[in-house]
Amino acid sequence: MKRGSLVEAPEVERGVNVPQSYRLVRRDARAGRTVVRLAGGATFGGDEIAICAGPCGVESAEQLDAAARAVSRSGANVLRGGAYKPRTSPYSFQGLGEDALKMLRDCGDRYGIAVVTEVMDPRDVEVVARHADMLQIGTRNMQNFPLLREVGAASKPVLLKRGISATVQEWLLAAEYLLLGGNENVVLCERGVRSFDVATRNLLDIGVVPLLEELTHLPVIVDPSHAVGIARLVPALAMASVAAGAHGLLIEVHPDPRNALSDGAQSLDCDQFDDLVRRLAPIAALVGRRLPARPQPG
Amino acid sequence: MKRGSLVEAPEVERGVNVPQSYRLVRRDARAGRTVVRLAGGATFGGDEIAICAGPCGVESAEQLDAAARAVSRSGANVLRGGAYKPRTSPYSFQGLGEDALKMLRDCGDRYGIAVVTEVMDPRDVEVVARHADMLQIGTRNMQNFPLLREVGAASKPVLLKRGISATVQEWLLAAEYLLLGGNENVVLCERGVRSFDVATRNLLDIGVVPLLEELTHLPVIVDPSHAVGIARLVPALAMASVAAGAHGLLIEVHPDPRNALSDGAQSLDCDQFDDLVRRLAPIAALVGRRLPARPQPG
Amino acid sequence: MKRGSLVEAPEVERGVNVPQSYRLVRRDARAGRTVVRLAGGATFGGDEIAICAGPCGVESAEQLDAAARAVSRSGANVLRGGAYKPRTSPYSFQGLGEDALKMLRDCGDRYGIAVVTEVMDPRDVEVVARHADMLQIGTRNMQNFPLLREVGAASKPVLLKRGISATVQEWLLAAEYLLLGGNENVVLCERGVRSFDVATRNLLDIGVVPLLEELTHLPVIVDPSHAVGIARLVPALAMASVAAGAHGLLIEVHPDPRNALSDGAQSLDCDQFDDLVRRLAPIAALVGRRLPARPQPG
Amino acid sequence: MKRGSLVEAPEVERGVNVPQSYRLVRRDARAGRTVVRLAGGATFGGDEIAICAGPCGVESAEQLDAAARAVSRSGANVLRGGAYKPRTSPYSFQGLGEDALKMLRDCGDRYGIAVVTEVMDPRDVEVVARHADMLQIGTRNMQNFPLLREVGAASKPVLLKRGISATVQEWLLAAEYLLLGGNENVVLCERGVRSFDVATRNLLDIGVVPLLEELTHLPVIVDPSHAVGIARLVPALAMASVAAGAHGLLIEVHPDPRNALSDGAQSLDCDQFDDLVRRLAPIAALVGRRLPARPQPG
Repeated sequence: MKRGSLVEAPEVERGVNVPQSYRLVRRDARAGRTVVRLAGGATFGGDEIAICAGPCGVESAEQLDAAARAVSRSGANVLRGGAYKPRTSPYSFQGLGEDALKMLRDCGDRYGIAVVTEVMDPRDVEVVARHADMLQIGTRNMQNFPLLREVGAASKPVLLKRGISATVQEWLLAAEYLLLGGNENVVLCERGVRSFDVATRNLLDIGVVPLLEELTHLPVIVDPSHAVGIARLVPALAMASVAAGAHGLLIEVHPDPRNALSDGAQSLDCDQFDDLVRRLAPIAALVGRRLPARPQPG
Repeated sequence: MKRGSLVEAPEVERGVNVPQSYRLVRRDARAGRTVVRLAGGATFGGDEIAICAGPCGVESAEQLDAAARAVSRSGANVLRGGAYKPRTSPYSFQGLGEDALKMLRDCGDRYGIAVVTEVMDPRDVEVVARHADMLQIGTRNMQNFPLLREVGAASKPVLLKRGISATVQEWLLAAEYLLLGGNENVVLCERGVRSFDVATRNLLDIGVVPLLEELTHLPVIVDPSHAVGIARLVPALAMASVAAGAHGLLIEVHPDPRNALSDGAQSLDCDQFDDLVRRLAPIAALVGRRLPARPQPG
Repeated sequence: MKRGSLVEAPEVERGVNVPQSYRLVRRDARAGRTVVRLAGGATFGGDEIAICAGPCGVESAEQLDAAARAVSRSGANVLRGGAYKPRTSPYSFQGLGEDALKMLRDCGDRYGIAVVTEVMDPRDVEVVARHADMLQIGTRNMQNFPLLREVGAASKPVLLKRGISATVQEWLLAAEYLLLGGNENVVLCERGVRSFDVATRNLLDIGVVPLLEELTHLPVIVDPSHAVGIARLVPALAMASVAAGAHGLLIEVHPDPRNALSDGAQSLDCDQFDDLVRRLAPIAALVGRRLPARPQPG
Repeated sequence: MKRGSLVEAPEVERGVNVPQSYRLVRRDARAGRTVVRLAGGATFGGDEIAICAGPCGVESAEQLDAAARAVSRSGANVLRGGAYKPRTSPYSFQGLGEDALKMLRDCGDRYGIAVVTEVMDPRDVEVVARHADMLQIGTRNMQNFPLLREVGAASKPVLLKRGISATVQEWLLAAEYLLLGGNENVVLCERGVRSFDVATRNLLDIGVVPLLEELTHLPVIVDPSHAVGIARLVPALAMASVAAGAHGLLIEVHPDPRNALSDGAQSLDCDQFDDLVRRLAPIAALVGRRLPARPQPG
C-alpha cells in the first residue's frame, strides 16, 4: 500500500510512478541478461561467478601484495581494497588515496587479477578510473546523484552497493541513473541492511538475489563480510548466496585480521578464504554455475 | 552498546544481564547438540534434515489429504497445517479448530508422517498436544509467556518461531522459558523479520542460522515461505537455508494455491515442491547432511 | 505499494483488504468520538485528558501506597501498576499476581483513583476485571487473539498498547477484534516502536496521534516512559504528546526509582512527576483540553 | 550491547570508540551552547526559535516570490527552497540549479529573510555559498564525507539533516567532520527516519530533541513535513516539536500545493502556514522561547 494512504491517496508515495521509471534496468528492457566483463577475464552475470576478495583498506604495499598473492592463488579474479575510506568518525583511518590506487594497479598487474575500489568524490572518478578496472559506489553513496552522474559517464564498469536502508526500488533507480548516463556495465551488490537487532552487524537480505533476477537484467552479487560482520559466519553466508543464485561474491580477506586498520573482525585470513573457495565450487555447480579457474601452480 | 547509553549507563538496557540468563539454552549448557525426534522418525538437529510441508490452513479433509499425500511422497516427514489461525483481521478465515486437529491426525497416520500445528491459547495446549506430534508457537506469540509456560509443561516437542521483530536475545530467552518449564525438545524457526522495504513480505535473516549454531545447542530451521511471501522465490531461499546449515525447512504447499483461503501467493503447488526437494538433496550432502528418505513406490 | 508487488500483484499483501475491514473502529462508524469513562471520573477522548501514573510493577503494599498517594495528589486520575509482568527473561521479577491486584484495588479506593493493570492470560481476565477499572493489553499481546476475544467480552474498558513493531493497520484491526467482541470502550496507547538506533529504548511515533484522530473515533494516549526509556527525557515527550493532541498519558512513577525491581531508569520520582503535571496544564489549555482537577488539600 | 557481541567482543562494533570521538560536538566541549546566527537576524540555539519555510523546490520566480512574500509576512525568518534536488528517479524534476539560487537570493533580499538551500555536490559549495546564507546537507548526504569536508571549510552556517536511518552517533560524528573542518555554525535537523510502517512517509524521532540537548551544544530543529509526509498532520507535529524543545522548524509551504512539482502532498498552503505560526507562539512561550517578530504591516 501507499505511504500515507490510510488517510487519502497522496502524491507523496515513496516510489510513486517508480515501476514506470524502470526504463533501462528492467528485465525486459533487453533481450538477454547483462554480462559485465572486466580486464583479466572476470565476468558477472554469465555462467562463471566472480570472486572479489581483498582487504577492507589498502594499508601498505606489503599488506596488499600478501593479500593479492593469496586471493589470486585461491581463485579470486577480482582484487578489492579501499583507497578512499568512508569512515563514520573523522578520527578513523581514512585510506591512503592515490598511493593506494597505484598499489592496487601494481598488484592487479602482478597477479593477473582485475581491481575494484571505491570512489566517493565525483572529482576522483577520473583518477580512480585510470587505475582501477571497476568503480565501486559504496553504501553511503548509493543516492549521491552527482557521483552517480559522473560514474555513469565513465568508461569503467560499476559495482553499485545497496544503501544501508535502501529499498529495492531506490536501488534500481540508482542503477537507472548510471544506465541513463551511458554506463551499461553495472553490477548490483547486496551487503546487508540495517536492522533492529544488534546480534550481527547488518542483516543480509538474501531474498533480493532471486527477486532481482526477476526484476532486472543486471547481475547481483553479495558481500557477506559487511552483511554479518563476524568472520566465522562469513562462509555460511557465502555458500547460501551462491545457492540462492548470486553472480558473485565480495569478501574481505586480510593477511593478518587481528592487526587490520579497519574491519578486522569480519575479515577472513588467507587460509580461511582458500578453504571457503574450495567449498563454493560444488555449490556453484549445483546451480549451473562455475567458479573462476584456479591458476596453475608453476 | 547499551540502549540509552549515549547519556548514561542506564539500567533499562534491552537485554541487561541477558547473556547470564542463557542458562539452559546456551551452547555449553550441554555436552552435545540437542536432537529433537518426532513420532514417525523425523529428527531436527542431527545429520538428517527435517522437511515440514503442508498448507497454511487446514481448509477441508480433501484439501489436507491431497497435500499430505503429495508432500509425503516427495519426501517431507512432517505435515504442517493450521487449525487455529492467528489473523490480523477478525474477518479473515480463522481456522477449523479441533476438526482440523483430527484431520491432521488422520492424515499423519494415513501417510506415516508427523504432524505440527500452531497452538495460540494456553487453554488449547492439552487438546493440540493430544492430536499433534509437535506444538508450534507462532511469531505473534513468541513472548506470550502464559503460553510458553503451558507448552513448557507439555510432553510434546515445540517449534518456536521467531517474533516478527524479535532480537536473537529475546528469541533465546523465550526458548529459555520452555526449557525452564521442563520441555527440552525445542526447535527454533527463523521466518523472516519485519523490514522497511515492502518488496518482499518479510526479510529472511539467514545470518541467524550460523549464529545460532554458535550460541545454542538447539536446532534451527527456516520457513522461507513466510519470509519472502512470493512462491517463485521460495526455492532459492530454501536452497540457501540448507547451504547455510539449517536443520530443516518449513514450507507452505497447497494443492491449489490460487484458491487457498490464506497465504496462496506464497504457497508452492505439489509439483513445485517435489522439484524443490529433488534439488535440495545434493545441497544437503555438500554440508554433511541428508534429506529424509523418499518413500518407496508400491 | 503492496508487499511483493514489484513482481506481481500478490494476494499476500500485508493488510490486504484491510481498510475495508475497519468496520467498527473507523472514524465514520460513529456519529461522534468515543469517550471512555472510568469509575472515579477519569475520561479518555473528551475535553479532559487522563493522567495515568504509577510504578511499572507492584512490589509491595508500601511501595504502591506511596506511589498512589503521590500521583493522586499531583492530579493523576488513574493508577497504573503491574500485577502480572511480561518479562523477556524468565529469571526477572514476574509480578505479585492476585496479591498485587488487591493492593491496586485498595489504593484505588483509598485515594479515589481508577486502576489500570495488564492482563496477559485469557484465564486471568475475570480476576483482573474483578479488581481493576481498566484492562491493559500489553505490547507483546496486541495480536494475542484469544486474549483479545476474552477482553472483548469483558465489561471493563480496555487500554490497548501498540505492538512493538505493529503497523497502524494491525493495531486498528486488533481494536476491531475488541469492538467486534462487544467491548466498545477501547483506548489506544502509543508506547514507542522498535528502531535501528539504540540511543533510546524505543522510538516514540508521535505522528500516530494526529493520524489516529483522522482514522478512528477511539481515543489515543501516549506512554513516554516506555518510548524513550530515560527518565530525564520523559517530560519533554509528555509535553510534546499533549501538544500533538493525545487524550492522555501513561507515565511510570516510582517513589524510589533507584531501587525499583523493574524499569527504574525510566521512572520519574514523585517530585519530578508533580513538576511535570504542573507544566502540562497550560499546554493542554492551548489545544483546548484540560487536566483532571487536582484534589483539594485537607 | 555491541553488534556481534552475542558471540564475542568484536572490533567491528558499529560505533566502537565513538563517544570518545565526540571531541568537538559534545555538550561539555564548550562553556555554553552554540547559537548560530544568519544574516537578517535569524538565530538557532538561543531564546528565539527559527522558522524556516518555503517550497520543496524552486519552480519559478513567481512561485518563489509568492511563497517568500507569504512566509515572511507570517513570521518566518528563513526561506527554504531547493535549487539542486536529490530525486530517487532520474526522470523526476531535478531542480533549476544556479538560476534557482539567484531567485532565492533575490527573494531573500526583497523580503529581508535569510536563505537556506541544499548543496549536493562538493563542486557546488562555492556557488551555493555565494548566494545562500546557510548550506543544507540533505538526508542522503549526511555521510557524504567529501561534501562534509568542503562544507566544513566554507564560511556559511550549515543545516545538517539526519540520514534516513542514521543513528544519533553517526549523525553527531557527521557534525564532528564539519566542526573539525573549521565550521562551528552547525544546526542539526531531525526529519524523520525510515520505519517498517507505511502509514506515514517517515517516522518523526521526537525523542532526539531532548536527547541532543544533553549530548551536544549544537542546536536541533525539526522538519515535520518530510517526517510525516501528509500536510494535515504537519501542524500537530510542529506544535509537538516546539513543546519538546526544538530550536526551530523547517516547514514546506507552497502557494499552490496541488500543482507542486515535488512534495505537494506534504506542503502547507500559505494560509495554513500562517495559522500554524499563530498557534506556535504560545507553545514557545511555555518552554521559555519566543518566535521571530512578525513584520509590521505598512
